[in-house]
Formats: sequence, structure tokens, C-alpha cells
Amino acid sequence: MSDIITRRVFTVSLIAAGLVTSLKGQQPPATGGALEPALIDDLVAAYRILAQQGVLDGFGHVSVRNPRAANRFVMSRSLAPELVTAADLIEFDLDGNAVDARGRALYSERFIHAEIYRARADVRAVVHNHAASLIPFGVTTVPLRPVYHMASFIGDGVPVFDIRKNFGMTDMLVSDTAKGRALAQVLGSKSCVLMRGHGVVVVGSSIPIVVGRSIYLEMNARVQTQSMAMGGGRVTYLDPQEAQKMMDAGENRGYERAWELWKSKVKGQ
Amino acid sequence: MSDIITRRVFTVSLIAAGLVTSLKGQQPPATGGALEPALIDDLVAAYRILAQQGVLDGFGHVSVRNPRAANRFVMSRSLAPELVTAADLIEFDLDGNAVDARGRALYSERFIHAEIYRARADVRAVVHNHAASLIPFGVTTVPLRPVYHMASFIGDGVPVFDIRKNFGMTDMLVSDTAKGRALAQVLGSKSCVLMRGHGVVVVGSSIPIVVGRSIYLEMNARVQTQSMAMGGGRVTYLDPQEAQKMMDAGENRGYERAWELWKSKVKGQ
Amino acid sequence: MSDIITRRVFTVSLIAAGLVTSLKGQQPPATGGALEPALIDDLVAAYRILAQQGVLDGFGHVSVRNPRAANRFVMSRSLAPELVTAADLIEFDLDGNAVDARGRALYSERFIHAEIYRARADVRAVVHNHAASLIPFGVTTVPLRPVYHMASFIGDGVPVFDIRKNFGMTDMLVSDTAKGRALAQVLGSKSCVLMRGHGVVVVGSSIPIVVGRSIYLEMNARVQTQSMAMGGGRVTYLDPQEAQKMMDAGENRGYERAWELWKSKVKGQ
Amino acid sequence: MSDIITRRVFTVSLIAAGLVTSLKGQQPPATGGALEPALIDDLVAAYRILAQQGVLDGFGHVSVRNPRAANRFVMSRSLAPELVTAADLIEFDLDGNAVDARGRALYSERFIHAEIYRARADVRAVVHNHAASLIPFGVTTVPLRPVYHMASFIGDGVPVFDIRKNFGMTDMLVSDTAKGRALAQVLGSKSCVLMRGHGVVVVGSSIPIVVGRSIYLEMNARVQTQSMAMGGGRVTYLDPQEAQKMMDAGENRGYERAWELWKSKVKGQ
Repeated sequence: MSDIITRRVFTVSLIAAGLVTSLKGQQPPATGGALEPALIDDLVAAYRILAQQGVLDGFGHVSVRNPRAANRFVMSRSLAPELVTAADLIEFDLDGNAVDARGRALYSERFIHAEIYRARADVRAVVHNHAASLIPFGVTTVPLRPVYHMASFIGDGVPVFDIRKNFGMTDMLVSDTAKGRALAQVLGSKSCVLMRGHGVVVVGSSIPIVVGRSIYLEMNARVQTQSMAMGGGRVTYLDPQEAQKMMDAGENRGYERAWELWKSKVKGQ
Repeated sequence: MSDIITRRVFTVSLIAAGLVTSLKGQQPPATGGALEPALIDDLVAAYRILAQQGVLDGFGHVSVRNPRAANRFVMSRSLAPELVTAADLIEFDLDGNAVDARGRALYSERFIHAEIYRARADVRAVVHNHAASLIPFGVTTVPLRPVYHMASFIGDGVPVFDIRKNFGMTDMLVSDTAKGRALAQVLGSKSCVLMRGHGVVVVGSSIPIVVGRSIYLEMNARVQTQSMAMGGGRVTYLDPQEAQKMMDAGENRGYERAWELWKSKVKGQ
Repeated sequence: MSDIITRRVFTVSLIAAGLVTSLKGQQPPATGGALEPALIDDLVAAYRILAQQGVLDGFGHVSVRNPRAANRFVMSRSLAPELVTAADLIEFDLDGNAVDARGRALYSERFIHAEIYRARADVRAVVHNHAASLIPFGVTTVPLRPVYHMASFIGDGVPVFDIRKNFGMTDMLVSDTAKGRALAQVLGSKSCVLMRGHGVVVVGSSIPIVVGRSIYLEMNARVQTQSMAMGGGRVTYLDPQEAQKMMDAGENRGYERAWELWKSKVKGQ
Repeated sequence: MSDIITRRVFTVSLIAAGLVTSLKGQQPPATGGALEPALIDDLVAAYRILAQQGVLDGFGHVSVRNPRAANRFVMSRSLAPELVTAADLIEFDLDGNAVDARGRALYSERFIHAEIYRARADVRAVVHNHAASLIPFGVTTVPLRPVYHMASFIGDGVPVFDIRKNFGMTDMLVSDTAKGRALAQVLGSKSCVLMRGHGVVVVGSSIPIVVGRSIYLEMNARVQTQSMAMGGGRVTYLDPQEAQKMMDAGENRGYERAWELWKSKVKGQ
């Protein structure tokens, strides 16, 4: 107990002294409290569902904000999505520090999640993936737009983050706070942000919503590609008002119906 | 018995008074009689087959008209197709009212089915789906046409329903009688109708036929897309007379051969 | 015994009288002898392999010539390929008459097989399928050509049969001797013939070869489509001499290596 | 023991006499020592993983250099990849001679592997495959380039080997030392080389790396194809410096995370 108090006082002093960065990794942040079993179950299912639906392969990740502590989020240790279990989950603070890593390797791009949770109070879950059908929309000037009602959540547009703009020649990874912050700025108030030559980040107010959006974003990309090829570029997209009305009407009913199916398909794996 | 008589008289009075709408949901319609077990089995199989064949995902639905009562049809409660069992089936009248919902959530687009059964005495089964390959034909000006004999059922064309035309900015869903009726009007006497930015409705005289049509319509869309890309738009489609002769010869033999296969593949799931 | 003699004499008289057609179906042809169990096993496997590899769906068929009787061939009763067992096999003569149908339904397009066996002494196995990637090459003017060595067997070209040319408006099916003969004429000495708005027929000197060709023909169609789109039509195909040298060197080693794999994957189904 | 000494002396004499070629197949080369069980396990897994991920079908192969003897490598006998077990592995020298074939059929293209191991001391594993999405890049003038970070290993380009250039009309197979050497020359210091009208060879410093590269090369080909179609040819590829930085940062972390997943998916097969 006294240890904790001491540590906190010490941390505050360091922040005041502008020295907190050097502390990172040495003094782990305190937990925001354990997740409910049902939420753990949903987070593990999200990894496996996105693998089974072909959105994630050996790479990419999902996180959820700790409902008890807005400045903490939970994601897996560095592990292929299809293999994630409850025992692999690790809690992080918004600087990307693990509460209790126990020597386990961490996703180097956890800063994507951290900085979005910091910037967007409404976001409670985040997915980062490299789905093949989405990559072309990040490397051409063609905007990703909703061709059908299942993608109403992008009715207000999908911005593209080009890491080269602010950071020049990099290894393409959003592997620190500065890059995560720049990404979160380009995301703004939208539901998704493409990353040039890399992938996408999808955000939402719950795990089923962020999973459903990830699945239908990938599908919409395929359908848009096909529609553009067929229509010679002349495609009737959802009107922003139509998309908004769909969102107001409950965005595919919160994917509740599909979530039940998706979860049933990864049970017992 | 006297209750039923009372209710009917009461209903007639209300209709006369223009108040029947407010009654809906309070006084459920009478059943048209139970479906034969074999028909229940086929309807449940249809949901699962269309999921397994990639036509349906977590959304979309199938219905069958009650053979004993032309003004009643049966479909699942609001549920992902792959999870549907006999216990999930609910009977509806042509206003979309459930005979015995027992508090279960209903598909909001059941009015698609209701209004088509009302308008088309020849239709005994209906499928609504969002298959990705079909969406482009609803959002471009390219007509969906039969590239091979398996799609002879669209030899007389596939109309496109644009909900915006009559209803302006909506959430895209055919979620009431007026929208269902407008859709049925665009369908006319055809076997399918595309819905702009949404999906398709396929109709037929039996469950195997409507399932077979749904599967080969999706396939034809893919093949047509590929043929157009390859031929620079110059494609030899089935002549309407060829399509008609195929229909006269039994439309893929009523899909009997394939139905046996499809059903065997979802047995024991 | 005396019955058989009587029947044969009677048949000869009828042929002389030009009345044999009306006899068909009443007096079945004699058997050419039972197939070896290993050949039966391969024929059943061929149906299942082509279904599993996505070349056949609920439709299409495979046949083998009876090694003991050049004027007899064996194929399944009318059945979805994935369900075929040894008990479903029926022997036919080259007029498409079943030796012993026992009331079972027959594939209406068995005349494809019959007339090719009649015209081509070198052919010992035939496949008819509707693979989606092949259809575009039948409905456009783009010739199907080998983009890689696995498709060397089409180095001398793939003709297209258009049933409309000789038979006008039909139901598209090759369902009698005259249509089968016209198809066999267009096939000529080649290994495959496309059927406009319908599918393809592939022939070969053994079951593994005809199965391997069917699989790689479908694959080549996909690769050629993609190559043409990418290269703006400028594609370096296999030179006919290269294709011929590959054929001389054993055409993918007779698909022996792949056949072992394919067969292992349908065992125990 | 004395036998081995005798054989070696004898071989040296023959080399001096220019007669070594005629010896091949008669006097097998000595072993470089057995592979560690873990390496055998990885090599067998590599065959099965590449089959399961759709990179290999019934054809293609993987090899590993013997860590104890730089002039020996190990690959399967001629067998479909999905069927390979430890018992099927055979050791070869850099002339493509088997140490102990025991009458088993050999891959005719083992010279691809032999000559690359001879030319490239840094290469410890090699894959040869015919993945459909790669073929178009060998038969058109479109260069294969990295559209996203997962394909950083081709940041310095992918050369194309056209066997016709040096060898005229052939059966397309790299089935002897001269052809293998010509291929290795075109490969140069790169990580991959396309083979016109045939396939690709991928090299790397370990089995997981060569497997990972094979998987993401195939994926990158699909994404590039789609990007080019969509962007009308205007695509922002990874800058060579970005690709290099990704390589310096560990090339997808050595595919360690994915390798664990891929291997788990073929266990127990």
C-alpha cells in the first residue's frame, strides 16, 4: 500500500519535472480494474471472429477500453489473432505501457489504440487490420464510399493517413505515441481511417460494432471495386442522408443478429 | 369461439372507422394452419443452404407461403440464417402481423415478403439477400442479364427498385407496407428485383426454385461482370427465346438434382 | 437365351426398316462387360474431386469409356456429382441408350459423351462442366489460351461451339445425338471445346488426365482474365512449340502427383 | 569406413578426368549429416502450410539447406505438398544428386534449388510455386511491386526469368543444372524471381521467412492487381527506403507470430 502511494507521488513529481518518459517501462501503471468475464469473452471472440471472417490473418489486433477506467484499455499480447485466449490479454495505459506484461512481447502498434482512446471519448473498441480489399483505397486517389446500406457507417467519408507526410521515410509502423497521435488526428470524428500502404483502423462504441464494421468495410471495398469497374466510375453511392438515417435507425441493429452467429462459429475452437 | 366472433365483428367495425392500423399488434391474426413437416424442413434447410453457399451471411431471409392459406406466410424470427431451426419459424399475415410472435423480435423487412405474396398469386417462396456480386448491378446502369443457361429465369430482365424514387431519403429498409407494395410493383411479373444500394429479392413457385435461383443469380452476376470486363462490353447473352425454351424445358429441372446435394450438405449441422 | 437371339434378329430387321429409333428405350443394348473395381473407384473419385475443387457444383458429369468395349461408356445416373457412388453408375451405348437403367433418371446431356466417344477413338474419359471462369470465353470473342505451362494441353487452341448456329433457338442443352455430333465436330482433335452460354467439355486419354485438365483449364481461365486486364491485352502466351514440348514431356506427368492428393482428399467422404 | 574413403578418392580421380557427369546417379554423394528434428518438423510444416494457405496445390516444393553442410539441401521426394511427411525427405548435393533416393521419384525441378544454394550463400530455404495471382506479372510487362508493408521484401524489385531467352523452345521446366544456373543469375541478390509462363521462386534465410514471403507475395500480387485496376495505373507503392526500413526493423518480425499460427493449423493433419 505504502509502495503504491510512494510510486504515485514519485510519478507526479517526475511528470512535473518532464521526466516521465524515461520512467516508462520501469514503473508499470496501476490497473483500472478487471474486465467483466462477458467482456473478456467478447474480446477473445472478436480476435477469432475477425480471423475466421478473413479480416485478420496472422497480424492485426482488437482492443476494448476498460469500462471502469477510461484511461486503460485491454488487448492481447503479441500473438496471431486466431490463437488469442483470455490468458493472453494485457491492460495498457494511454501511453502504451502495460500494467502487467510479465515479460510477454507486446504489439508494437498498440499506440494506434492508445492515442485513439485518448482522443475519442466515444470510442470503446478499436480494430487494426490489413484486409487485402482495403489496401487499394489507401494507395490510389479513389475514396472509399458506401455502395450499400451495410456500410452506412462510412457515409461521412474515410480519411487516409499517410505516415510519410509527417514522419518521412519510416518502417510504416505506428509504433510510438507521436505516430499514434497523428493517426488519431486524421481519423478525427470518423469511424475508420485508412493507412497508406499498410491497412485500416476501425473504431466504435462496442466490440460487436467494431467487429461488424470491420467485416462490412472489407465487403464494401470489394463491392465498390467491382461497381466502379462495371460502371466506368459512374456509381450511385448511398446519399449521406440515407447513410445517416440508417445510422439513426440503429446501424444494422448493432450487428446483434450477426454477432450471435459469428460468436457461435468460433465457440469450441 | 364467441371470442373469435366478437373479435371479427369488432375488427370490421374498426376497418369501417379507419382505425384498423392502431389495432395491429394487439389482436394477432388467426393461423392459416400448420405447415407440413416436410415443408418446415425445407424452409429451415433453405436458410442454412443459402448461408452455406455464400448467398446469405448474418442478414437476409427466406419465406414460404402457407399452402393451406394463401394469405399467410412463414419465416424465421429475427435471426441469422445459419442458426434458424423449426422452433424459430413464425406465421404472418399479408400486413406483416405475426400470428404468434411470443415476444420474439421480427425481421423489419418482412413487408417485402408480405406485399409480394399479396401481389403475386403464383409466388410460393421469397428470398431477400445482400450478395456482394449483385450490388453493383443496382448502383450502376448496367442491366443484369443471363450469360449462361443456368440463369434463364432472368431472360425477361431484372428491374431495379430505388427506394429514393418514391420515399426520398430513408434508412434504405423496406420496413412497412407502403414500401413493400412499391417494391412489388417494380418486381411486376419478373423472378427477381434488385434494390439499389441494398440487395435483391428473388421469387419462385417453390423453396428449391427460389433457392436455386438465388444461387445462380449470384453466380451469373460474377460471370457477367467478368465477361463484360473481358469483352469490352461486347457479350453474347442468352437470347430471350433461348431463355424461355430453357424455362419451358423445366428450368434446371426444378433444381431437383442440386437441391438433394445442397440439403445433404446442411444436414447434421 | 432364345429370348436374346430373338431380340437381336428383331433389332436387325428394324434397323433395316429404319425403325430403330422407335425401339430405343424398349430394347436395351447389351453390356460391354463390367469395369475393373479400380476404374470404378477412379470414376467415382473424379465426380467428387471435381466437386471439391470447385469445377463441378450440383450439375455437370464425368464418364469413362469401357476398356473392354469401345462402343460403351459409363457415367452416373442423374445425380449431383458430390453424391455419386459406385451404385449410381450406368453403362451406355454410343446412341445414349442405357444398358440397365432400372428406372433411374439419366443425364439429358449424355449425348455429349456418346458422340465424342464415337468420333474420337483416342478419348477414354470426358468431363462436362459449367465452371464460372470459363463462361466468359464462350460469350466474348476472346480466345482461351495457355498463360502457363500447366495449361499446355490447350496449346493448339480451344474452339467454341454455338448451338444456335445449327439448331437455332433451343433450350441450350446437348440432349440428342444430332447436337452431340455437331459438338464433337467442333471439338475436332482438340482437348477441350467451349459451349457458348453454357460451359465446356474436356476430353483425355484417362480419368486423371481429364480431371487434371478440367482443374487447370479453370485455373488458366482465371489467370488469363487477370493477365489480360493487367497487360491491356498484351500477354505473352505459351508458344505452341513450348506447349507441345510440355505435352511431349508428359503433360504435368500425367497429373499422377496431383491425382494422389486429390483422391486422398475425397476418401472417407 | 574404408568404403567411403575409397569412393571419395575415386570421385576426385573422375572429376580430374572430366568424367564426373557420367558417374551421377551411380555413385551417390555422401550425406552432410542428419537435420535436427525441429528443422525436419519445420520443413514438413512448410509444405503443408503453403498448401493450406493456397500458395501450393498438387505441384511446387520447398527445400532447406543442411545447416551442417552448405553444399547439401533437403526436400521431399516427388509428392504433392499436402502429403509430405518426414519419411519423404531426401538430401541432395548441389548438382541435384540424391544422397539416398532408394528408388523414389525426384522433383524434376530440384535444380532450381541446387543452383540457388550454390550461388547464394545467404539463402537457407527456397520455395517454388505456381500461385495464380503471380502468373500475370510474368506474362505482361507490369513489374511486381510492394503495395503495402507486408511485401517490403520486394522493395528492390522482382526480376523475370524467361527460359526462352537462353534455351529457346523448351518444356518450360528448369530440369537441369544449366537452366537452374541461368535462373539463379536472373534472381541475383533479390528475394524472388518470377518465371514467365510458369511461376515464381522465393528465397530466404529461414523456413518461416521463405514461407511468409511466399504467402505475402501472393497476397501483394492480388492487391497490386486490384490497385492498378482501380487507380488507372496510378498507385503509390512503398518507397524503396520505406521497404528497406521495414526490412531493417525485422521484416514482419521474422513472421514469428504468423508462423506459430500457420504451424498450429497444420498440426494433427
